[in-house]
Amino acid sequence: MSRFWSETTRNITPYVPGEQPRDKIRIKLNTNENPYPPSPGVLACLRELANEDLRLYPDPDSRELCETVADYYGLSAEQVFPGNGSDEVLAFLFQTFFGPDDLIAFPDVTYSFYPVYARLYGIPYREIPVREDFSIDFSGYPGEAKGILFANPNAPTGLYIPPAEIEALLRARPDTLIVVDEAYVDFGNQSVVPLVKKYDNLLVVQTLSKSRALAGMRIGLAMGHPELIEGLNRIKNSFNSYTMDRLAQAAAICAFRDDAYYREINGRIIRERERFKETLRGMGIPCTDSKSNFVFASLPGLKGPDALRLLREQGILVRNFAGNPRIADWLRITIGTKEDMDRVVEAVKKIMER
Amino acid sequence: MSRFWSETTRNITPYVPGEQPRDKIRIKLNTNENPYPPSPGVLACLRELANEDLRLYPDPDSRELCETVADYYGLSAEQVFPGNGSDEVLAFLFQTFFGPDDLIAFPDVTYSFYPVYARLYGIPYREIPVREDFSIDFSGYPGEAKGILFANPNAPTGLYIPPAEIEALLRARPDTLIVVDEAYVDFGNQSVVPLVKKYDNLLVVQTLSKSRALAGMRIGLAMGHPELIEGLNRIKNSFNSYTMDRLAQAAAICAFRDDAYYREINGRIIRERERFKETLRGMGIPCTDSKSNFVFASLPGLKGPDALRLLREQGILVRNFAGNPRIADWLRITIGTKEDMDRVVEAVKKIMER
Repeated sequence: MSRFWSETTRNITPYVPGEQPRDKIRIKLNTNENPYPPSPGVLACLRELANEDLRLYPDPDSRELCETVADYYGLSAEQVFPGNGSDEVLAFLFQTFFGPDDLIAFPDVTYSFYPVYARLYGIPYREIPVREDFSIDFSGYPGEAKGILFANPNAPTGLYIPPAEIEALLRARPDTLIVVDEAYVDFGNQSVVPLVKKYDNLLVVQTLSKSRALAGMRIGLAMGHPELIEGLNRIKNSFNSYTMDRLAQAAAICAFRDDAYYREINGRIIRERERFKETLRGMGIPCTDSKSNFVFASLPGLKGPDALRLLREQGILVRNFAGNPRIADWLRITIGTKEDMDRVVEAVKKIMER
Repeated sequence: MSRFWSETTRNITPYVPGEQPRDKIRIKLNTNENPYPPSPGVLACLRELANEDLRLYPDPDSRELCETVADYYGLSAEQVFPGNGSDEVLAFLFQTFFGPDDLIAFPDVTYSFYPVYARLYGIPYREIPVREDFSIDFSGYPGEAKGILFANPNAPTGLYIPPAEIEALLRARPDTLIVVDEAYVDFGNQSVVPLVKKYDNLLVVQTLSKSRALAGMRIGLAMGHPELIEGLNRIKNSFNSYTMDRLAQAAAICAFRDDAYYREINGRIIRERERFKETLRGMGIPCTDSKSNFVFASLPGLKGPDALRLLREQGILVRNFAGNPRIADWLRITIGTKEDMDRVVEAVKKIMER
């Protein structure tokens, strides 16, 4: 510790992302990356734009990207905010909408970065227990909360809430900002983005890291009422004039144009997810009904960290959240290719047969 | 304004970066971009890495980049912090080292983003007047300041302070964090980075946007004592797990390896800057002795915004800071190619002959 650290720096416990292994992991299923490459159009566009124009600053407003996303979803560009990964978008929204006098609430099982942001900005928060089956029970959320946040499908459970239930929440709580983190929505679910036109208390966050196979380019989005987006821009423009580099903006634009390619690869992931869930259940292994690009499962009779280790010994890296007692014995297993998942099944069989 | 905006969002006045024009500007000299392209090695590396690996997250610690920069400067990787542009690095350092109970001080003429950061994080600050000739007078800085920040060469004056004077400050104020923003140091000046090994109260910020012609890729750096760097990483890892995408990290690494190329193009800029200053002085136009990749000049008898407009009418975009009364009548003119500067001289001549 340095004598120069601020109080925030001294007290914070940073988020720890899934490992990017340097050793010999044969199958990396720990950070929900897409097993398929970005579209050929995205890669061609990046190669073309790796040119002398990189000496120039990017468009600070990412105008063309905002327009592309707006077209895709039937919004206006003023309803779109892009950022350097959805993590950055989330950080900005915590600071844009909440302060030390506000209360925010989120499930006790969800993306574990939320409490880190709250502590970073000194925002009081309450973690509301999910039900025994991990489903979110909105009736337990405090009336005074200025914000409610959750991922849908939720992380790391994969459980999905249909738009009608979220719309009921938006209507019941018009003065609460409802933030829906749709990082995993494209794996066969319906987005609530269309509700943005109807409710000024809805902010939807998305990422191009998962369904658009661009984790390496760091692209996130928020969509909401123009006044919410204007707020995000005020904070962003007080933090970093240009959050998205030229190549990230271009990759994002091309990815939204190559929709057919992405529907095809994500269709494969959805089919593989359903097959994998069925196989696990057939082996007597409990898993949630995940609608994401991962499966959430618990190997009977094994502590989570032990299960993690036994898989790693067979060259397979998955994720365990030992820090949260409610899910300490569960594993989050990213859906890879059919070959990847066949190997996982083999490895799990070996472990269960010991 | 939305009823959901936090107090910070309501009260902040965002920084306004130099315009990225969409109309017909023939010569863009308003944001200190390099007139020459990134090195061929950087572009080749970007084209090669625009491949299927972009589906994977980048290394969150940018380890190879830290090692490359450390090698370049004779530091250890633990003394290097990379970020998504030096704007992001600056934002992080404001939050990492200062809080509402600390006072920070910087010149009243310097990078105009500093007061925006201070307000974003609620850090009290004092702007200390530079001398009549725009030079920084460290004797006027309050003893209780926990931090002193300045750009060297300073922006937008271009005035340079040699390392010996900064070392005297580091020694005189061992409990003040001295932040030296070296965005423009590579244009013929000596960096204070070597002093990082000797003083734990020094943090040096750099960017690859200017001297390495990579404004479009958003790459910034901080260098300092390992405990200062650790503090920055605590805040960064509580904000965004992966601030630098795969291509930005790769571009930065290649740029540090292609040093000969960059020395050559920046040598051209330095020669052109000296020639341009001499020409302006020969025309009776006051300008500072800028050691940066811009010249700071004041057209006699003209208000700054009028001078800006008259140049723009001739297709030349430069920068004026009308918001700061001390420099309202001055123009910051980026050094472009010899042909660019010849045209600027012609345009200025026309204006002066009216």
